[in-house]
Amino acid sequence: MKFDIEILDTTLRDGAQGEGITFSLRDKLAVTETLDELGVTWIEAGNPGSNPKDLEYFRQAAGLKLKNARLCAFGSTRKKDIKAHDDSQLRSLLDAGTEGIVIFGKSWDLHVNEVLQVLPEENLAMIGETINFLKKEGRFVIYDAEHFFDGWVSNPAYAISTVNAALEAGADTIVLCDTNGGTFPDMITAAALDVLKKYPDSRFGIHAHNDCGLALANSLAAVQAGCTHVQGTLVGFGERCGNTSLAALIPSLELKLGLRCLPQGNLVRIGELTRKTAEIANVIISDDLPYIGAHAFSHKAGMHTDGVLKLNRSFEHVSPETVGNARHLLMSEVGGRAAIAERVKLIEPAVDKDHPVIVSLAEKLKNLEADGWAYEGADASFEILILRELGRYNPLFTIEAYRVLSEHPKGAKIECSNAWVKVLVGDQHEVAAAEGVGPVGALDEALRRALTRFFPGLAKMRLEDYKVRVIDGKDATAARVRVLIESTDGQRSWNTVGVSADIIDASRAALVDSIEYMLIHAQ
Amino acid sequence: MKFDIEILDTTLRDGAQGEGITFSLRDKLAVTETLDELGVTWIEAGNPGSNPKDLEYFRQAAGLKLKNARLCAFGSTRKKDIKAHDDSQLRSLLDAGTEGIVIFGKSWDLHVNEVLQVLPEENLAMIGETINFLKKEGRFVIYDAEHFFDGWVSNPAYAISTVNAALEAGADTIVLCDTNGGTFPDMITAAALDVLKKYPDSRFGIHAHNDCGLALANSLAAVQAGCTHVQGTLVGFGERCGNTSLAALIPSLELKLGLRCLPQGNLVRIGELTRKTAEIANVIISDDLPYIGAHAFSHKAGMHTDGVLKLNRSFEHVSPETVGNARHLLMSEVGGRAAIAERVKLIEPAVDKDHPVIVSLAEKLKNLEADGWAYEGADASFEILILRELGRYNPLFTIEAYRVLSEHPKGAKIECSNAWVKVLVGDQHEVAAAEGVGPVGALDEALRRALTRFFPGLAKMRLEDYKVRVIDGKDATAARVRVLIESTDGQRSWNTVGVSADIIDASRAALVDSIEYMLIHAQ
Repeated sequence: MKFDIEILDTTLRDGAQGEGITFSLRDKLAVTETLDELGVTWIEAGNPGSNPKDLEYFRQAAGLKLKNARLCAFGSTRKKDIKAHDDSQLRSLLDAGTEGIVIFGKSWDLHVNEVLQVLPEENLAMIGETINFLKKEGRFVIYDAEHFFDGWVSNPAYAISTVNAALEAGADTIVLCDTNGGTFPDMITAAALDVLKKYPDSRFGIHAHNDCGLALANSLAAVQAGCTHVQGTLVGFGERCGNTSLAALIPSLELKLGLRCLPQGNLVRIGELTRKTAEIANVIISDDLPYIGAHAFSHKAGMHTDGVLKLNRSFEHVSPETVGNARHLLMSEVGGRAAIAERVKLIEPAVDKDHPVIVSLAEKLKNLEADGWAYEGADASFEILILRELGRYNPLFTIEAYRVLSEHPKGAKIECSNAWVKVLVGDQHEVAAAEGVGPVGALDEALRRALTRFFPGLAKMRLEDYKVRVIDGKDATAARVRVLIESTDGQRSWNTVGVSADIIDASRAALVDSIEYMLIHAQ
Repeated sequence: MKFDIEILDTTLRDGAQGEGITFSLRDKLAVTETLDELGVTWIEAGNPGSNPKDLEYFRQAAGLKLKNARLCAFGSTRKKDIKAHDDSQLRSLLDAGTEGIVIFGKSWDLHVNEVLQVLPEENLAMIGETINFLKKEGRFVIYDAEHFFDGWVSNPAYAISTVNAALEAGADTIVLCDTNGGTFPDMITAAALDVLKKYPDSRFGIHAHNDCGLALANSLAAVQAGCTHVQGTLVGFGERCGNTSLAALIPSLELKLGLRCLPQGNLVRIGELTRKTAEIANVIISDDLPYIGAHAFSHKAGMHTDGVLKLNRSFEHVSPETVGNARHLLMSEVGGRAAIAERVKLIEPAVDKDHPVIVSLAEKLKNLEADGWAYEGADASFEILILRELGRYNPLFTIEAYRVLSEHPKGAKIECSNAWVKVLVGDQHEVAAAEGVGPVGALDEALRRALTRFFPGLAKMRLEDYKVRVIDGKDATAARVRVLIESTDGQRSWNTVGVSADIIDASRAALVDSIEYMLIHAQ
């Protein structure tokens, strides 16, 4: 075994059982390469018996030049009343041609009696004969003891006897599964210790679900009890509430328990590769995902930002760099001058928190926040605010006027909204018009059309995300709204903010900052 | 103590320290009422010393008629080198006028020496004198031992001496905090058992952060060690990766450990009230949040759906009904009909979940939800949908056309936005125009002006709240937006929803439902 802990990623199998997750063949190959890049030991890639199109995946995946990971196919024990070598599902597992095969079987007497509806001895025979058959074909066999913990609580002797059947048949690794996700860590510890004491020379693993929010804790408990194989999905999605998030678990194992899971040097890439996997799956990674989430090292309370600047570990359990993340000191009313100074230093190193520019910025920020502005998600707007305060901001263009018309019903030849805008660049005027389904889209398009004559680089820019927040609902439609915009030039992204009682005007402010920011950084 | 476990919700304090979370005064009052409805024991509502606008909150909150919860204000131990009664921060805590006061102090020698920079004895004096001062003023004092677990590992004797100082000064509850969120459950258990053995007659609590994804497990470990007070935020947001999600913890405590946390019968409402809190904070609840997430009881794999239909508990660790959630068998229409039938019965008692109207509504709802509509916060719109399905809906008016013009700069004699609208009531047409600071306000005003000639009662109606959510940010301004409107006639309030790629059109849909609803109920 190369590593202290063998990681099996099941994004492509249990992950694909998550609500809303669907992978195309092309997606599956891209996820495979991403997981290999990270360096997990095993990739559980599909169930060729229940999903024939997975066979095509395995055929193509065989052609990938994987550097680190090995593939395995997933299936169940043989059907009742037939021989293993007559079972078409087991045949398709072999046809998949993978180095490893994961077989799941029943450990919980309730499932044996009421779901599978076979005699307890027949279930043991199904486990043993299946594994025996696959071992004879020369495969590495990982046995998933489904519902092991529920079984161990219900009928411990029987649950152990299923593990025994798998080991006697030659299974290489036995994985204790909390299939329903309802087990607490103390029970995981007790059951794992019991099994590991009985079979001290065998390799055990853990497969946890997050139905109580305990998948990470249960995986840790199993490792602390002696399990050396961990299953999960990188992002964490999977059946119901999902599986153990490997992106959140691996840093704990490597940094805190000193257990190597990945090739040396790869831990810093875990955030980037998890985001890539999420992107392929078309899901959004939660900002508060441990270690790699966007908020994982964000400090907001003044007491915290002061502390972390004095001494990082006063408010950080690990260094953000170890997992390829970064510290963010949020610019907010609960933050303080120290946080603002840190940000300004990136532009003008010769300031400290008592510099008049910082004092004045802190005062301005307080007033702007009282008016509904919020810069913690709008760093590009904050940079423009800093430049203005430093006297280094020269607007590259001005919107002299705009008009946005929204109509209903939609005309025969026009979209619902159309916008007209007039800009001034230097001493030159330009006007442009555009249509859109909504008023903001129309204004955005018209504005960039008018400016592209002067700044051709803007053709690359597009809006990536658009968020609206009503700041205080009390006055309803006369209340102020805050618009947050994320823009991209195809390579990097930046965020800006605008606030107004008029949603069009708030959008305009955020759009102008976004364009200015791009032009400043293109210079 | 009314319950086995005393729950303290800190959504309004630690929650507000989460990135992207900003509460207006009105939001804070609404969250307070929601938490009281759920029945938590304590609501930690703000830090009046660091944030003067919180004082206004406490002034107004004193007028709320809370049924279950008690309020507490949050602050730190006195400053070094002054007397407690001269400390303005402690004065503002008293001015807040709450029954409880939460004081945090330092347990970790590292923080005492390097962040606070006081002698260890001075820190003990700061803790003791602060609590003593507040106890003499008759307050219930909860002492948050910040960084307790890091302190206990670094210098256990000193960490314990800080707890001792708090207890000797009369603190009513001592809360052991994993402030940096880096502690594993085994260490939580060891430290908590150590403290509880030393002070068997005192009440202890836990405050956990989620930086390793272990906040829930750490809270459970502390409870299993004997702590009877748990802090967290209902949704789970808070500084960095967030706090313990009480929505995910309370079901585990009540259903699995048999520990009562909430008034009898309230557990089934935890999902609804958590969503309401999230809505106020303008955050989205993760679909895989344990117990209450939309996917928590979704079964996708054929093996799982088959199993769960034979025997629910074969793939469900608890019954979804116990937490007010529902089973979803994906790729089937079984989910949700019972809930819909319950709502329809309020209008038409003679239906059950197999009635054709319910079957058709369930189908419609599924399609509408796929398009971004959400009726959880828009019961008035849902009622109109039901009436339409029952064949009892006759629109009282139609918008034949509208035009909304938004201009910049503001003209000498006009507001930025003006709207023109033409309605049809029976066989009569009417047009009206109005100005507003924003386009939606202008449209709302014009529409009600046009209709008031036919329905004079509308003069009493006004918009109370207006929320916009971008449903899928990926297509930026061409993405769909969901508008939620709260309206009032001065006596009661109702909520409606509209969805469109055009924000004006989404607002129109919600406005029309809102006016129809008022007219239907005025008849």
